[in-house]
Amino acid sequence: MNRDEATKTGGVSVTTHRVNYSETDQMGVVYHARYLVWLDIARTEYLRRTGMSYRELEALGLRLMVSEATLRYRRAARYDDPVRIRTWVRECASRRVTFGYAVEHAERGELLLTASTALLVTDATFAFSRLPDAVAERLSPIPDPVRL
Amino acid sequence: MNRDEATKTGGVSVTTHRVNYSETDQMGVVYHARYLVWLDIARTEYLRRTGMSYRELEALGLRLMVSEATLRYRRAARYDDPVRIRTWVRECASRRVTFGYAVEHAERGELLLTASTALLVTDATFAFSRLPDAVAERLSPIPDPVRL
Amino acid sequence: MNRDEATKTGGVSVTTHRVNYSETDQMGVVYHARYLVWLDIARTEYLRRTGMSYRELEALGLRLMVSEATLRYRRAARYDDPVRIRTWVRECASRRVTFGYAVEHAERGELLLTASTALLVTDATFAFSRLPDAVAERLSPIPDPVRL
Amino acid sequence: MNRDEATKTGGVSVTTHRVNYSETDQMGVVYHARYLVWLDIARTEYLRRTGMSYRELEALGLRLMVSEATLRYRRAARYDDPVRIRTWVRECASRRVTFGYAVEHAERGELLLTASTALLVTDATFAFSRLPDAVAERLSPIPDPVRL
Repeated sequence: MNRDEATKTGGVSVTTHRVNYSETDQMGVVYHARYLVWLDIARTEYLRRTGMSYRELEALGLRLMVSEATLRYRRAARYDDPVRIRTWVRECASRRVTFGYAVEHAERGELLLTASTALLVTDATFAFSRLPDAVAERLSPIPDPVRL
Repeated sequence: MNRDEATKTGGVSVTTHRVNYSETDQMGVVYHARYLVWLDIARTEYLRRTGMSYRELEALGLRLMVSEATLRYRRAARYDDPVRIRTWVRECASRRVTFGYAVEHAERGELLLTASTALLVTDATFAFSRLPDAVAERLSPIPDPVRL
Repeated sequence: MNRDEATKTGGVSVTTHRVNYSETDQMGVVYHARYLVWLDIARTEYLRRTGMSYRELEALGLRLMVSEATLRYRRAARYDDPVRIRTWVRECASRRVTFGYAVEHAERGELLLTASTALLVTDATFAFSRLPDAVAERLSPIPDPVRL
Repeated sequence: MNRDEATKTGGVSVTTHRVNYSETDQMGVVYHARYLVWLDIARTEYLRRTGMSYRELEALGLRLMVSEATLRYRRAARYDDPVRIRTWVRECASRRVTFGYAVEHAERGELLLTASTALLVTDATFAFSRLPDAVAERLSPIPDPVRL
């Protein structure tokens, strides 16, 4: 992930990544489970740019547990491709946050994947908890910029 | 995956797995992307039991590309837990197959995850293709045994 | 890993595994980092068969941290190949244990990889610690059954 | 990997990375197999900076297969840590290249891991082959800048 290039404007956080060899499979494309890791990294950067990193949330005793994930694979990413992940908040309540994502080829702009993940707020023992108001306020939902 | 223990009855294929250390994250539970790999392995075993392994499908010049995945995380699996993956076909056409899955704790029976994945049939160049009739016939859909 | 098939005789623990799609890369073989995970799983089974699982060691407040790993890749494993991992103890002191491994094609017997890993005993804060005598005694070193 | 920050001077290529959640395990540190992926990415960037990317080598019908890897784990990397990977060539012949690596905490400078990997040059069928002279000449060995 190249954070220097990244910008967050209008509620959309943008991160970039270059596909590495470990991410490919013998079909010659990115293995489908790998996208969930990219979404996780992109979500982490979204949080960091709101001023509260996930590491800091954990230090407060909070956890964000993925409770649902929906992925639509549209085109295959290939080895060494530069990809761009756009991330936004779809819904935010103190106990549950839903993120939307669009993964694109960073040069050709082709849409590779769209996705949505819902996360539950828990404490370190996995009991339901709440985001601090100051954090929740900064996770401002926007309408989906692309159809998921 | 312990294939010896596995059985396929009534259209549901059962495989087992023991959670290994590489699958955990610092939250002390299985990292959420990892379940997609378990589903892949379970689907591969389903196919093998129909009499046509995925390796053989590839040798025929066919590929099954994941086009959609939906996962609902219900309880966390932990290190060294024995898990059981139940797999079935939800829909089957010559160009597209949808599988359903339920991941359970193998001893306590708790439901950990339910999921559905849709796969498109392509040739080795990723152009749309069709399953041989003899293969498609053996992928008999059943009603979901658990709510996904 | 198929634990039912596994046997531990003469100080060598044997586990089996079938290569899954996520483990391949676009070269059409198993990605080289993946072998370290197989060795980890095989080492875990070795420990379980001594009567003290790694999960139990962790419950005692101990950790085994990999401090050195040496791998020699001899032949490539491929998708769907059944592989067998043979594991033994090369050296054992209360503070450090070294394991040896041979990964073979389970049907053809070809040697795919040999490896050695050294592990340090620590407590949960990563301060050096010692194995309980009862555990250390059961980790009996043997001469390498294959040249590493 | 942040390639913009990276520089290659005096035969050492430097890349950076931030530890993501998928790379941690329940010990709260980076899982040991993950370092091999970082080394792979760092080696890929080294090659790119010589003017011949690995993708281009593959397009010429060549492959670099890891034949040996030796890793010494010195300190654990943790979630969200920025790390720096320094990469250099230790030995280069037309049929075999050996790389050295030092992974450090990018802010504190602590040495986390040192490693060496040997790669064999093959063709796409894994028969031994040779690097083009123009490529081999640019892989100039240097003395190890840190003790491996």
